[in-house]
Amino acid sequence: MALKSKLLLVALLLSVLFLSVYVASATQDPELKQCRHQCKHQQGLDSKQREQCEQGCDKYIKQKREEEKHRRSEGGGGGGGSFYPISETGREQEEEKEFQGRQQEDQNPYFFEDEHFETRVQTEEGRFQLLQKFTERSDLLRAIENYRIGFLDTKPHAFVAPSHFDADTVLFVFQGRPTVTIVRGEKRESHNLERGDLFRIPAGTPVYMVNRDENEKLFIVEFMKPVSVPGEYEAFYAAGGENPESFFKAFSPQVLQAALKTEMNKLERLFGQQRQGSITRASEEQIKKLSQQHGQGGGSEGFWPFHGGQSSSDALNLFSKHPSQANKFGHLFEADFNDFKQLQDLDLLVSFANITQGAMVGPYFNSRATKISFVLDGEGYFEMACPYVSSTGRQEQQPQQRQKSSPRYQKISGNLRRGAVFVAPAGHPVTAIASRNSNLQIICFEVNAHDNIRVPLAGKKNVVSQFDREAKELAFNVPAREVDRIFNNQDDEFFFEGPNEQPEHGRAYA
Amino acid sequence: MALKSKLLLVALLLSVLFLSVYVASATQDPELKQCRHQCKHQQGLDSKQREQCEQGCDKYIKQKREEEKHRRSEGGGGGGGSFYPISETGREQEEEKEFQGRQQEDQNPYFFEDEHFETRVQTEEGRFQLLQKFTERSDLLRAIENYRIGFLDTKPHAFVAPSHFDADTVLFVFQGRPTVTIVRGEKRESHNLERGDLFRIPAGTPVYMVNRDENEKLFIVEFMKPVSVPGEYEAFYAAGGENPESFFKAFSPQVLQAALKTEMNKLERLFGQQRQGSITRASEEQIKKLSQQHGQGGGSEGFWPFHGGQSSSDALNLFSKHPSQANKFGHLFEADFNDFKQLQDLDLLVSFANITQGAMVGPYFNSRATKISFVLDGEGYFEMACPYVSSTGRQEQQPQQRQKSSPRYQKISGNLRRGAVFVAPAGHPVTAIASRNSNLQIICFEVNAHDNIRVPLAGKKNVVSQFDREAKELAFNVPAREVDRIFNNQDDEFFFEGPNEQPEHGRAYA
Amino acid sequence: MALKSKLLLVALLLSVLFLSVYVASATQDPELKQCRHQCKHQQGLDSKQREQCEQGCDKYIKQKREEEKHRRSEGGGGGGGSFYPISETGREQEEEKEFQGRQQEDQNPYFFEDEHFETRVQTEEGRFQLLQKFTERSDLLRAIENYRIGFLDTKPHAFVAPSHFDADTVLFVFQGRPTVTIVRGEKRESHNLERGDLFRIPAGTPVYMVNRDENEKLFIVEFMKPVSVPGEYEAFYAAGGENPESFFKAFSPQVLQAALKTEMNKLERLFGQQRQGSITRASEEQIKKLSQQHGQGGGSEGFWPFHGGQSSSDALNLFSKHPSQANKFGHLFEADFNDFKQLQDLDLLVSFANITQGAMVGPYFNSRATKISFVLDGEGYFEMACPYVSSTGRQEQQPQQRQKSSPRYQKISGNLRRGAVFVAPAGHPVTAIASRNSNLQIICFEVNAHDNIRVPLAGKKNVVSQFDREAKELAFNVPAREVDRIFNNQDDEFFFEGPNEQPEHGRAYA
Repeated sequence: MALKSKLLLVALLLSVLFLSVYVASATQDPELKQCRHQCKHQQGLDSKQREQCEQGCDKYIKQKREEEKHRRSEGGGGGGGSFYPISETGREQEEEKEFQGRQQEDQNPYFFEDEHFETRVQTEEGRFQLLQKFTERSDLLRAIENYRIGFLDTKPHAFVAPSHFDADTVLFVFQGRPTVTIVRGEKRESHNLERGDLFRIPAGTPVYMVNRDENEKLFIVEFMKPVSVPGEYEAFYAAGGENPESFFKAFSPQVLQAALKTEMNKLERLFGQQRQGSITRASEEQIKKLSQQHGQGGGSEGFWPFHGGQSSSDALNLFSKHPSQANKFGHLFEADFNDFKQLQDLDLLVSFANITQGAMVGPYFNSRATKISFVLDGEGYFEMACPYVSSTGRQEQQPQQRQKSSPRYQKISGNLRRGAVFVAPAGHPVTAIASRNSNLQIICFEVNAHDNIRVPLAGKKNVVSQFDREAKELAFNVPAREVDRIFNNQDDEFFFEGPNEQPEHGRAYA
Repeated sequence: MALKSKLLLVALLLSVLFLSVYVASATQDPELKQCRHQCKHQQGLDSKQREQCEQGCDKYIKQKREEEKHRRSEGGGGGGGSFYPISETGREQEEEKEFQGRQQEDQNPYFFEDEHFETRVQTEEGRFQLLQKFTERSDLLRAIENYRIGFLDTKPHAFVAPSHFDADTVLFVFQGRPTVTIVRGEKRESHNLERGDLFRIPAGTPVYMVNRDENEKLFIVEFMKPVSVPGEYEAFYAAGGENPESFFKAFSPQVLQAALKTEMNKLERLFGQQRQGSITRASEEQIKKLSQQHGQGGGSEGFWPFHGGQSSSDALNLFSKHPSQANKFGHLFEADFNDFKQLQDLDLLVSFANITQGAMVGPYFNSRATKISFVLDGEGYFEMACPYVSSTGRQEQQPQQRQKSSPRYQKISGNLRRGAVFVAPAGHPVTAIASRNSNLQIICFEVNAHDNIRVPLAGKKNVVSQFDREAKELAFNVPAREVDRIFNNQDDEFFFEGPNEQPEHGRAYA
Repeated sequence: MALKSKLLLVALLLSVLFLSVYVASATQDPELKQCRHQCKHQQGLDSKQREQCEQGCDKYIKQKREEEKHRRSEGGGGGGGSFYPISETGREQEEEKEFQGRQQEDQNPYFFEDEHFETRVQTEEGRFQLLQKFTERSDLLRAIENYRIGFLDTKPHAFVAPSHFDADTVLFVFQGRPTVTIVRGEKRESHNLERGDLFRIPAGTPVYMVNRDENEKLFIVEFMKPVSVPGEYEAFYAAGGENPESFFKAFSPQVLQAALKTEMNKLERLFGQQRQGSITRASEEQIKKLSQQHGQGGGSEGFWPFHGGQSSSDALNLFSKHPSQANKFGHLFEADFNDFKQLQDLDLLVSFANITQGAMVGPYFNSRATKISFVLDGEGYFEMACPYVSSTGRQEQQPQQRQKSSPRYQKISGNLRRGAVFVAPAGHPVTAIASRNSNLQIICFEVNAHDNIRVPLAGKKNVVSQFDREAKELAFNVPAREVDRIFNNQDDEFFFEGPNEQPEHGRAYA
């Protein structure tokens, strides 16, 4: 009997071990990725169902892998272990790369691409894309669980139907010339926004929007903080018919008739005509009327098109600011709480980085803020040092090892192009590099921004140079002058000349 | 082998699909409801055990349903899909209703009735009922996870034993005349409260209470914000014997003897006499003494019964306020932060709505606040538009469909009577209708109240009327004058004449 | 068929019941404890894996226990039920104790010992120990989920390598004389701290430290509030080589070369020399240099060793304060927000209690704050009354019973010695008793401290004495003078003479 239970214990511990190994290796499978992706994105599932769904994926892939086990051996543990790996060649290298590519998602919960966006609205005239909830990707992103990122992308002269959201929203206009109209209490305010404008829409504020530019597409990035269901976000359309459906249609006919003092047949007519979706096309005449600013706080009156080149007084134009960092390798524009008080209660800073082609920013880290970066234009890659993931995915070293050693830092990286999103949590050293072909333009949302300090790790003012001479010696175990010789070489600040060659032919996740 | 794994994948996806369908349909079973209810209310279970318990319910019901499958076909998908459903007749309609009735709980996590309250105290003289934790009902209520609602219901002259709670508490006196005594530091304060009084008891404050009215029952609604275990709430009785047990009895005899410098046999006597429970009956003489106000901040001294008609200076009487909305269809009394600073750090507003019989309030929505409404008197129903639940329960439309369409709004509703609770999250349009027989009286707790705006959807100042003419046209796809013709019909504000007939014979959850 | 489903329901309910009983009894098994401990401390597991791991443990132990069932009967339900249990004798008592000892962990999620600490750094010269995450132990500690406790323990003249943490940190120096150097923006500040000093290091601030005392060990207790991953904490070493690894090594060689404008071979040399770990030994000369204070805000300039006896102006020395409570039985030193504004945004108070040998503190409770106590020296035990756990572990009484009765309070207790940690949530009455051999010295971190009031339950100013005469009568059901006779006996305040004999020979968890 006792023997049997001993055996059971052994079996249990073996299975825990196996589980670890298995989960690590399973992360490499694109089919599993696909399967889990579907589980994650099936909106209606509650957390338990989601979990069961994912467990199903795991079981499936486990079975499959066991079948395959005879055919191939499980390749080595990823590049993170050795600092300057001897460059592999030929077929072996290719395989290694493919292997790493497959591993990327689970090793890298800080990086998001097209496939991580959900299409919330799509019509002939435009679409709204919403990034998945951060904690759907990884528990490591719990600190930003209640924030969402999305973007709106429309044709010229597109009209976005009236709605309110259950989230505080901050807009950044990257392209196009939107006129945003909001209704606050009994006041309607129209804001003619321009490229570079930041604008806040408080939660629950009815809003509609038109791209008054007749040639340029509209591209707006949105940062949202939900107020109704933490981390979840919905639009409520007051107007509309069949598409979008008006929320009025959820009420009983009897109730609606009484509330609006109107007979049902008239209501049916009203709430049935809109069939084109929530992004439609406005006529030139309509746009002209809609973009006549009215009801704004500021005293500057005037009629379109005379305000065409002038931003709304309730918006902040990031590009009109003096850059806080600027040299030939890049420019950084930052809006702090003094510039734009409307971000204060969100504890949010917004900045725009334009990294010159072939140049780089950082490495640096934020002392308190977690930074969510959305790539607006250009190409490049980022790299980040992270102690929370290891070279074999989410799993750390074995605890025995862990318990006696300092942390190990895994390289987190990803190729950047328009629409890519990456997250740098507080304390995590990070750098971004522009390709040699185009400037890399990034809009950054920093949450938990109050009292945040950006700590440079290279260039002028880098933190290592500021250590005491004795601390340098003790920390590096070399003479302090050797430390200085290296950390004083770079005399630019924040933006630097980039690497001559990109690591491993531009693939960052070595 | 590869074939086998393909088959497995298919099986997996099928089972996910099945799971979805099954969970949706399973929500209809009262036995399952009962079973899950027991799992939820079995206080001592941790979240894992609770989950296992509920999974057990699911398995059971799944098996059962499979057995029944041959005998009956699964009726249609609920009424939410069609706006003006053709009225069913005869047996079919009856069945449909029963079906909807059974579905109600899972479709409607925003509505609570008697069965969702737990009896925390029950004696001859009164009882305290606590509403279940909101997230026990649904994850959709995460935003109010850390708030609890309860009510105290006692006979005339009842005494509620001294205790402190690990929660900030706000009382609303609906009936009876309680004298509430609290001990703050070395100061004892008695407050003679009246019908309509709001009063705050900070967390950890020792408190006791007597209903000084000799004829009227006491009915107090309590809003609580736990400080010790988020979302959990307990009373700590200092005094007491066997019932309530004093927390002193948890300490070792040796420790207690030393702390109180008293021999054990005396302590045993002291902590053994109270056997009647924590709500007992006080004599007229005792009540007279207890309701002599002492130690209050205000300068107004005086002795019972001379303060009988006058409220405590630390309380706010909602009914003494000028109503913020008033017409023949109803009255709204609101306490904001200026009236009652003690609600400010709780970010809470309290309001009292009295809807005239046959009248209605709204529809409107709150821009930021989530509103918890407790029905004090009368009958009626509420309706709310919700994008987070669909007509088949918690599940949304299929993701394929979801990804290309605007949100759909499901009607959430419930029949209101004393003790019913409903929750309207931020942004959700909501209305409440009084029956033709009696006024509907509701006390409302709005959390996340700072900067909240109430946005009217009908009547004077409704938000649709305020859209630009062009926005109306584009949004509804009809001439703007048609929109105006409808949205300008109702010229009352906030409270309106109700519907002539109630939807589906008073059953609101069509 | 229907019969079959009835049977299934019965089976289900039985299994729920069995589950309850089983989980309660399983908590007694040290093997299970060990097994679950391993699951908890295996850092890399995500929450799902961790759960699976623990479920595995449960299954194993279940099987094992079933095997053992024939051999022994399950002893009684723990002492919590009876107030003054008749003292057991002989073998039976021994067994009872062993039984209770095994039960302790799950019955007592508020108490932590050596085994609950993880070694994060260990070198020849010192170590850093981190207490497990509170919610890893129990969901009941959710209110302090995002705080961590650790301690640093080094030899004389030890140097702690430069790093930054993703957590706000508050240090308390109990032993040794550390010089702490932080880099804020472009300013380096050194702080010569002394025994009794409190010092705050903001999240993300690069810091290093040396114990400038040549004879005394360094013992520092750290309170941390993570900012990057809630509840998780990591150090980021900028300097270092192989041990600690520098986070610079996570970047691609190409990126690093460009950022530091330095060739790879030089970088390899720099980042490869440190092999001794992050706590090393400094020379006397190095310490002399490191402890020359520079760059401090205060105007007091001077050079070591002239500042030897004087604390940093940015630190607060707890022992230099007038004690807020003092008599021959103990002293309490408290730092409030006025003394040390740096604790205000953490909503934290820190206090130091020195309980004279043979004396006790309390019982009392905190109205809002949850108190985390770390024992620095001496021996003793604590007792606390808790309504959230029952005598059979986490499980409450059966719900039927629960629903009609007042709460029952379980004694929570544990033996205190250096390194023990106990948590007293808001509202929970608690007391601590020093052994007869040595003073008991405790450093306490109180979170949610704003507006907190400490409510005494014995001695001068105890809360029961302050009840109205009538309330005493009604609450205890004895004449008020009997209540007074007992609650006025103890005329000391806060610290009292301890019990003559310790309960059950010093074992507190009866």
